[in-house]
Amino acid sequence: MKKNSLTLSLPEWIDDFLKQYQFPLVSNEERMRFVLKLTLQNIEKTTGGPFGAAVFERESGQLVSVGVNVVLNQGCSAAHAEMMAIMLAQQELGTHDLGIADLPEFQLVTSGKMCAMCLGSVVWSGVSEVLASAQPEDVENIVGFDEGPAPADYDQQLEKRGISIIPSFLREEGCAVLQRYVELEGVVYNPSRNS
Amino acid sequence: MKKNSLTLSLPEWIDDFLKQYQFPLVSNEERMRFVLKLTLQNIEKTTGGPFGAAVFERESGQLVSVGVNVVLNQGCSAAHAEMMAIMLAQQELGTHDLGIADLPEFQLVTSGKMCAMCLGSVVWSGVSEVLASAQPEDVENIVGFDEGPAPADYDQQLEKRGISIIPSFLREEGCAVLQRYVELEGVVYNPSRNS
Repeated sequence: MKKNSLTLSLPEWIDDFLKQYQFPLVSNEERMRFVLKLTLQNIEKTTGGPFGAAVFERESGQLVSVGVNVVLNQGCSAAHAEMMAIMLAQQELGTHDLGIADLPEFQLVTSGKMCAMCLGSVVWSGVSEVLASAQPEDVENIVGFDEGPAPADYDQQLEKRGISIIPSFLREEGCAVLQRYVELEGVVYNPSRNS
Repeated sequence: MKKNSLTLSLPEWIDDFLKQYQFPLVSNEERMRFVLKLTLQNIEKTTGGPFGAAVFERESGQLVSVGVNVVLNQGCSAAHAEMMAIMLAQQELGTHDLGIADLPEFQLVTSGKMCAMCLGSVVWSGVSEVLASAQPEDVENIVGFDEGPAPADYDQQLEKRGISIIPSFLREEGCAVLQRYVELEGVVYNPSRNS
């Protein structure tokens, strides 16, 4: 009999981390600083890759969910911060579609502009805005991850589907967080190619 | 306290379905016919979208995992067939990287060439080959799903990372399966855009 179910979990320190904050976080700057702090915590506690994300109610700044990269400790190459935040938001709200009319609009805040997988996931998710710090080339150049096959007209692919994107927001701070991962010799878990 | 864990499950009929087969499945044709039958079952039992996938040991044809689309019944926009099959294979084998040297090479067999999210996921997964039936434009034209922002040089993006792709394999049969979903008035769950 094959496995037919899987569980993905965030690190245990998340609850205590969230207790340090009072929500809502009204400005984009507050929201991004929160996500960068979350990311730094994931690095310092060595619980995963140097990425964090959160889903907020876009207008109110109420927190819906958070995610950090747990690829290594969950043994799951899809367990990126953005994927975790989106999937947990959907579980929280009981729908696969965060864009339905009887819910407020949602914003995904992410420490690094999404890899190709997470970009595709954002398009399916129903979020209406993305706020991102480090650029994909920062992730590739500073840390060495392969961010995958995103299209050349990345931002336009979101915009034409009605999803706003604010890239490079507090980008220097986002890059400093990536740099911290390198300093601590975090694992660059690109897949092996045994062929 | 926010949710910090989520579980994704395949439909209960999967175990009985698998009992009808004897593994390994040696040829690509056998493997694809198995995946198309799995997909048809997901449609007929109305347990999800018209997509199925499986991870096989590439050489032996031994089955590692299966996945079907469970977006609606799991309330998770990322719960595509390919994502489920890859994540379950990684759980089965206890690693986020299906490309590591002490494992055999793995092949992802999918009823429809992957959407942008699943393409990105394949790149992270460590699989060394993809065998796909319906083309993304079949999925868009026959059913009406938005397959997302994949790059123009889709196949080359895989090949340059050492991942082989065999597209349009039994494509007519793959399209017939999509057509069955339309006949049964399956839900086209593109996200809403409430902005």
